[in-house]
Amino acid sequence: MAQHGYQTGRLNLPFVGHCTFAKQPICVDLEKIDADVAVLGVPFDMGTQYRAGARFGPRGIREASTLFCFGHAGAYDHEDDVVYMPTDKVRIVDAGDVDMVHTDTTACHRNTEAAVRQILEAGAMPLCLGGDHAIHAPVIAAFSEQKPVHIVHFDAHLDFVDERHGVRYGHGNPLRRASEMAHVEGMTQLGIRNVSSSNREDYEAARRAGSAILSVRDVRRLGTAGTLAKIPAGQRYYVTIDIDGFDPSIAPGTGTPSHGGFLYYEVLEILQGLARQGDVVGIDLVEVAPHYDPTGITCFLAAQILMNFLGFIFQARYERKVPA
Amino acid sequence: MAQHGYQTGRLNLPFVGHCTFAKQPICVDLEKIDADVAVLGVPFDMGTQYRAGARFGPRGIREASTLFCFGHAGAYDHEDDVVYMPTDKVRIVDAGDVDMVHTDTTACHRNTEAAVRQILEAGAMPLCLGGDHAIHAPVIAAFSEQKPVHIVHFDAHLDFVDERHGVRYGHGNPLRRASEMAHVEGMTQLGIRNVSSSNREDYEAARRAGSAILSVRDVRRLGTAGTLAKIPAGQRYYVTIDIDGFDPSIAPGTGTPSHGGFLYYEVLEILQGLARQGDVVGIDLVEVAPHYDPTGITCFLAAQILMNFLGFIFQARYERKVPA
Amino acid sequence: MAQHGYQTGRLNLPFVGHCTFAKQPICVDLEKIDADVAVLGVPFDMGTQYRAGARFGPRGIREASTLFCFGHAGAYDHEDDVVYMPTDKVRIVDAGDVDMVHTDTTACHRNTEAAVRQILEAGAMPLCLGGDHAIHAPVIAAFSEQKPVHIVHFDAHLDFVDERHGVRYGHGNPLRRASEMAHVEGMTQLGIRNVSSSNREDYEAARRAGSAILSVRDVRRLGTAGTLAKIPAGQRYYVTIDIDGFDPSIAPGTGTPSHGGFLYYEVLEILQGLARQGDVVGIDLVEVAPHYDPTGITCFLAAQILMNFLGFIFQARYERKVPA
Amino acid sequence: MAQHGYQTGRLNLPFVGHCTFAKQPICVDLEKIDADVAVLGVPFDMGTQYRAGARFGPRGIREASTLFCFGHAGAYDHEDDVVYMPTDKVRIVDAGDVDMVHTDTTACHRNTEAAVRQILEAGAMPLCLGGDHAIHAPVIAAFSEQKPVHIVHFDAHLDFVDERHGVRYGHGNPLRRASEMAHVEGMTQLGIRNVSSSNREDYEAARRAGSAILSVRDVRRLGTAGTLAKIPAGQRYYVTIDIDGFDPSIAPGTGTPSHGGFLYYEVLEILQGLARQGDVVGIDLVEVAPHYDPTGITCFLAAQILMNFLGFIFQARYERKVPA
Amino acid sequence: MAQHGYQTGRLNLPFVGHCTFAKQPICVDLEKIDADVAVLGVPFDMGTQYRAGARFGPRGIREASTLFCFGHAGAYDHEDDVVYMPTDKVRIVDAGDVDMVHTDTTACHRNTEAAVRQILEAGAMPLCLGGDHAIHAPVIAAFSEQKPVHIVHFDAHLDFVDERHGVRYGHGNPLRRASEMAHVEGMTQLGIRNVSSSNREDYEAARRAGSAILSVRDVRRLGTAGTLAKIPAGQRYYVTIDIDGFDPSIAPGTGTPSHGGFLYYEVLEILQGLARQGDVVGIDLVEVAPHYDPTGITCFLAAQILMNFLGFIFQARYERKVPA
Amino acid sequence: MAQHGYQTGRLNLPFVGHCTFAKQPICVDLEKIDADVAVLGVPFDMGTQYRAGARFGPRGIREASTLFCFGHAGAYDHEDDVVYMPTDKVRIVDAGDVDMVHTDTTACHRNTEAAVRQILEAGAMPLCLGGDHAIHAPVIAAFSEQKPVHIVHFDAHLDFVDERHGVRYGHGNPLRRASEMAHVEGMTQLGIRNVSSSNREDYEAARRAGSAILSVRDVRRLGTAGTLAKIPAGQRYYVTIDIDGFDPSIAPGTGTPSHGGFLYYEVLEILQGLARQGDVVGIDLVEVAPHYDPTGITCFLAAQILMNFLGFIFQARYERKVPA
Repeated sequence: MAQHGYQTGRLNLPFVGHCTFAKQPICVDLEKIDADVAVLGVPFDMGTQYRAGARFGPRGIREASTLFCFGHAGAYDHEDDVVYMPTDKVRIVDAGDVDMVHTDTTACHRNTEAAVRQILEAGAMPLCLGGDHAIHAPVIAAFSEQKPVHIVHFDAHLDFVDERHGVRYGHGNPLRRASEMAHVEGMTQLGIRNVSSSNREDYEAARRAGSAILSVRDVRRLGTAGTLAKIPAGQRYYVTIDIDGFDPSIAPGTGTPSHGGFLYYEVLEILQGLARQGDVVGIDLVEVAPHYDPTGITCFLAAQILMNFLGFIFQARYERKVPA
Repeated sequence: MAQHGYQTGRLNLPFVGHCTFAKQPICVDLEKIDADVAVLGVPFDMGTQYRAGARFGPRGIREASTLFCFGHAGAYDHEDDVVYMPTDKVRIVDAGDVDMVHTDTTACHRNTEAAVRQILEAGAMPLCLGGDHAIHAPVIAAFSEQKPVHIVHFDAHLDFVDERHGVRYGHGNPLRRASEMAHVEGMTQLGIRNVSSSNREDYEAARRAGSAILSVRDVRRLGTAGTLAKIPAGQRYYVTIDIDGFDPSIAPGTGTPSHGGFLYYEVLEILQGLARQGDVVGIDLVEVAPHYDPTGITCFLAAQILMNFLGFIFQARYERKVPA
Repeated sequence: MAQHGYQTGRLNLPFVGHCTFAKQPICVDLEKIDADVAVLGVPFDMGTQYRAGARFGPRGIREASTLFCFGHAGAYDHEDDVVYMPTDKVRIVDAGDVDMVHTDTTACHRNTEAAVRQILEAGAMPLCLGGDHAIHAPVIAAFSEQKPVHIVHFDAHLDFVDERHGVRYGHGNPLRRASEMAHVEGMTQLGIRNVSSSNREDYEAARRAGSAILSVRDVRRLGTAGTLAKIPAGQRYYVTIDIDGFDPSIAPGTGTPSHGGFLYYEVLEILQGLARQGDVVGIDLVEVAPHYDPTGITCFLAAQILMNFLGFIFQARYERKVPA
Repeated sequence: MAQHGYQTGRLNLPFVGHCTFAKQPICVDLEKIDADVAVLGVPFDMGTQYRAGARFGPRGIREASTLFCFGHAGAYDHEDDVVYMPTDKVRIVDAGDVDMVHTDTTACHRNTEAAVRQILEAGAMPLCLGGDHAIHAPVIAAFSEQKPVHIVHFDAHLDFVDERHGVRYGHGNPLRRASEMAHVEGMTQLGIRNVSSSNREDYEAARRAGSAILSVRDVRRLGTAGTLAKIPAGQRYYVTIDIDGFDPSIAPGTGTPSHGGFLYYEVLEILQGLARQGDVVGIDLVEVAPHYDPTGITCFLAAQILMNFLGFIFQARYERKVPA
Repeated sequence: MAQHGYQTGRLNLPFVGHCTFAKQPICVDLEKIDADVAVLGVPFDMGTQYRAGARFGPRGIREASTLFCFGHAGAYDHEDDVVYMPTDKVRIVDAGDVDMVHTDTTACHRNTEAAVRQILEAGAMPLCLGGDHAIHAPVIAAFSEQKPVHIVHFDAHLDFVDERHGVRYGHGNPLRRASEMAHVEGMTQLGIRNVSSSNREDYEAARRAGSAILSVRDVRRLGTAGTLAKIPAGQRYYVTIDIDGFDPSIAPGTGTPSHGGFLYYEVLEILQGLARQGDVVGIDLVEVAPHYDPTGITCFLAAQILMNFLGFIFQARYERKVPA
Repeated sequence: MAQHGYQTGRLNLPFVGHCTFAKQPICVDLEKIDADVAVLGVPFDMGTQYRAGARFGPRGIREASTLFCFGHAGAYDHEDDVVYMPTDKVRIVDAGDVDMVHTDTTACHRNTEAAVRQILEAGAMPLCLGGDHAIHAPVIAAFSEQKPVHIVHFDAHLDFVDERHGVRYGHGNPLRRASEMAHVEGMTQLGIRNVSSSNREDYEAARRAGSAILSVRDVRRLGTAGTLAKIPAGQRYYVTIDIDGFDPSIAPGTGTPSHGGFLYYEVLEILQGLARQGDVVGIDLVEVAPHYDPTGITCFLAAQILMNFLGFIFQARYERKVPA
């Protein structure tokens, strides 16, 4: 039996084994994280105003991510002729999920903020998997001890509601909350579109707060370079991606889809440019609801865009250190 | 055009027209209800500990109910040779849904309790469509000004948790909360089964509080009559039906299914007997999650059991008034 | 309890309450309509030649429409900087569904025509939700007492079959039937494409009847302005939208999908232009089959395009009255 | 290459090859049928009053039947120790589908009747796959030149409506129509249950017409033998099976499910007994709607019950010829 | 922030965190297993003859198992008044999945056998999650160095094919392969039923090999005690459960469903009795195909039956050590 | 009854009748094929590394193809003003499926190669419906006695792996295998994109072997004409289309989707140009997995692209013979 797989290495096909993000090692003791990136699930969906189910987003994205990460020492992209995320250079851990307390939004957000603080203290970049967009408020709050950030926000909706019926921490409020924090220096909001994306008052409040707001059609008119030019260069970027910023054709599995959204390369190329023109220090990707995603393409989109984005970030960091 | 349908009456097939419960008239101004039964949706699912989606329960049950109520002046049952719910004798209104405030369990429960109080003040029997089982606590609380009730509870789970991590009003707690209320005189819990239905402490607490607890196999051993004999006769009954009390074969569309549950006639016949041995004064049916119900059979089950139960209740009331 | 929602207004989230189009008031007594727009469901699908299910189109679109219409006095679009459909200026009612008679196409069409006539007599613009495209024939027939119209038709298929095996009123015939009516002055057919869209004889018959026929690629080559220039300006437009005119990527939930269809902004911008260059006097949107739409995006598309189109129409009417 | 499959026979797994019923040969020229059984699809669903889709019933049942028929010369049942349907003794052909004319119920029924007449003239037993139950009327009409039959009917619903709004040939009417035919001598209706199964007038009309009507609970009380005793022995039986006679737990994929239906062995054993106590001369199985059957179990049920029933019929015929 | 969840323990709801079986610790280094039970996924489905997808069985069952195992120190069953699997007495590890080599059945089986041997050498009981039933052959082969076992087999199909077209290790062959092994002393096959369960030759071969074969109806006639009496007492039992031994109503999510199968308590009670009358030394549960299980009930069934069975096994072992 | 459909021709709607490709005649005896095109299913999916189910690809594509082929003598395309595939000029037969042997990749591939050889010997062009992409290796091997071909390959993945863990004939290897064959003169690979499409070594091996490799963005930059210019003109082309070359928005129903793929017209126009610039002598379309395609659009895409491609091929052949 000398030749069997257990002694000579494993093929480790995508459908084999436990689901961690990109099949990376687990480290649920946040105090012991020793990595470049810590992937943290935040399975909270009490903030949604329509279809729930984003609580299964972390599981859905983890499973989808297995498709993109087997067998190789890094991910080769022939278009860029780069091997992204060489396993000896970029260390990722899957930090499990924040503990959730049903019925209690405050407790969930408190746990979320505490977990992200621990990751930051451990020196890793947090990559948070929602959950609905309400999680962005406690996640960004956890950056209060860090240097200021500029938020780059992809979404169909402005998410800039102040308060309605006492609600301040639902999925319509997080960018408003972020805008109130001292360590948030600026904000670029991309993809905002159509009826129900915002009311006029909130839109004007966002503009007054200094936010740059571009619709999908604005971004198309500007092109990738023109869009990137609207985002101040040389900043520390925090990127929050609501999957409904993408078009329902490729991201149907979400609570509040809105037609006319971004296609894949549009976001990919902005993220690639962003990684080059500043330092990405945190990411959340939210609103993936696997039970509205029978074909899996929304989960694959989330996983694929994150895998690429991590590659871009660390390649850019590497290139800044080692000029060509 | 003298012969067209609008002048000579409508066929009104189930798939035609707005979805109200059993195609009954809408009355969303609760103060103006003048009916025997008021159907109230409570689309709350922040109390669930696993799969969400019961917020769409009211819509799912309303749509399913259209199948069972067209074209006739009441519902004939050839097995009983009775026309149930003659439209000239039983008046039902659909009172719409309780207003929900996302992220805020307390506000949702407060609105729920207030709405049920209004229905009771209007003299109608509330029939509440969940939502998850957490809604039972505010619904039963609204009976505080009424004469005492005995609760008859169908469920896979005991729902008798006192508090965990501060949670007292989730979907695992409502019968515990009810047991603490002065106007709840007793409790019979049917269908409780298997691992995860309760821990030993909560089970013992329920027994100490006077609850009679029967598993599905207990009920089968006792038979319908034997089971009914365990429920004190001549009481005012409040009936709370968690759809997961039924077997997953007929009720897959719910958040926390548990195998080995009740089949259709088992519950139907207990409800029929119950309507005869006392007065049913309120009902809730909870935990229907339509997005886990691709064939619709869970919604049909909820609608079918409720339609029959209403028939039994009013037929029994009628028979008590008009002895054969 | 002074502070509860029932006394201080409702948040009225999309998943709460009965499903009417855009959560607008119900008025099923067509003789009593007093509104600018009357939304009428026509749940007929006996005209389809492949997958049935469009009978649930009205319910699916109504539910989807709840996503786009909560909480605000009108719908703000930051791209146009306009609040569309201010609730004090545009009055919409949901007129319920036409009565259907199973097995009997003639009776269904007769009921449909009669209902639309009543709406027109009440002075409201009919917005008809199919149902399959066969409903267009009786709907447009109901305009016989109105001033002539030009039909603008979005579809993958020409729908210009005269008669096969005696069938004259199926979903392949309605534009042929319309072309035979005196009050139909012209026709522009957009999106017609690929094998199975028409045979040569019907295509030539449509051209002879004066129809302008553009494929999706034709429209892309012409651009929005170029396409609009092909439609005679200053007319009274009746717009019939077969959801399969859109691409299957965003409209999979339909009976006979055809790849290579329109994307969202392509149709949106044509509709916006159309509303400005003439007067839209009637609309139908057909062939939405919710049971082939597990993610809901087809229903959302129908609702979103209709909500925007209504906004454009009444904004254009307003602007014509009140020049800037 | 001498050893490849094409020269040494095929394994012919269920998922391989075209879908015919039980992988039997095709004979769509009805005049050329030379077989014991001719399987005929009747993909008509304009008779349904709720969810359409039974038009895909024939395709769904054909595909499911491939599971039960590969590789063996007949089907061995170890419980009976019989090889049913030895391929050298029972000849089945798949006769394709009746031609359908959308929008035109009369034409569809006329084609159906004509096709069944041709099969009968060819000396084969027709096995008709619906389609909705409306197809039973033309199918049974086609037996007018045959010796009289007794109809055995499995269904949740009585299907004995005379006429409503002019409808006489929908899926609620077929047994009424059958009862009016001279060649229908009697009728046993099994499984009829619960609200919406019939109104009182139709129930009484059926009884007056001589029908024996048993609910599911009646059948359970009587047992198989007791039930069979209610059906006159020694008759020529025509069996019409509405799949909704079965319980929704095993037959969810149908237009109008009703809880409390038959389980598998209940129907199987009645059919086995029936085959022994008389001669089965025709069968239809209707109301399978594959698009409401995501797991396929409804289609498997239809195929499995039909495969067994055919086995019982021909085994009984064989045993009558060759007494043990 | 002293009070947050990370410092005071976690609620750890079912939807939170990585999916391991019953949320037990991971140990993928099989040489380091120190536990009573090692759960091993075998995601192989190249042995199936109809619908594939059992490769996702291990993931589906792991996720479903999270529902049944949160928050308590063991699982209380009020019917038995026992706390099963007290966490301080029964140690379970999740050993991950066997490495699979696509296209190569032999390599997959070799890896499977090697992994089970390692678990046995580590002194743990293997609990294998299929994958299709083909995995049983290498799993049982791995017991060759152990004391002999009696196999208890739940299935719709006999799985006793010797060879067809050269296939000896597909999902129709494993019990035949097992019967050829010296360490397999006997076999009881339960649930075998209906056409396609076996051909006559294989049935007779199984009988000749000493197998006791009972259909579902046989088991019902015998009752639990009578069935258990057919299984030799005091043996070392290896239990192989094909999920299609259960009825399609509760186990639709499998490749080759067969109606008329076991219900939940039927199998549960046999397993409970079996654990008492001998020593269970190994388990596999196979043929769960999550993509045919849209409601999740098949995965829940697998998890629920396994959780209970483990409880019974270790409770019985405990009771044998500590007589009451 | 003189007027019924059977005597006057059939309407033959798409949902009526057995499913053969484009409703063309069946000829499963490959030696008797007398046709221009033979459609052959190859339901093999043991080569996939992630989601299985492509074994149902042939059935899914056949059913979808019925939508595009009824009632007319050829398929009219108004954009080209051509009637494609006039039934009197292009003869297609459906040759059924290759026999599959579960567990045995070698046997399946051997059967596949033998079947394609028979089709070629019969003088027909093989159109193979996968199954996963592993089938391409035996299919292309069968061309060894034909004149050399240039392979045009649409795919997200390079499929150029040599060997891993002994696997040489899985779905990641076929183009490597093809490149080793003497009768394959060249290769153009279109759509290859993103992480997981290839590793660097395989990419470089493909380039060394003379393959031209273009990403989706490369093709967009080049345009249709520019892309066609990269493919040597005047060759005999074999076209292999992995459905995942298309974007997940229109082809979700496949095992390993990758975002950023081709849209419909992009591939259509390349295929149209290819048919004109050389002779297409064989086609396979692979990786359609209907169970991940709940709306059917992936199957429709496969059928629609193939129907058009066949039209282009035979129209080009016709035009070469009969210059305009």
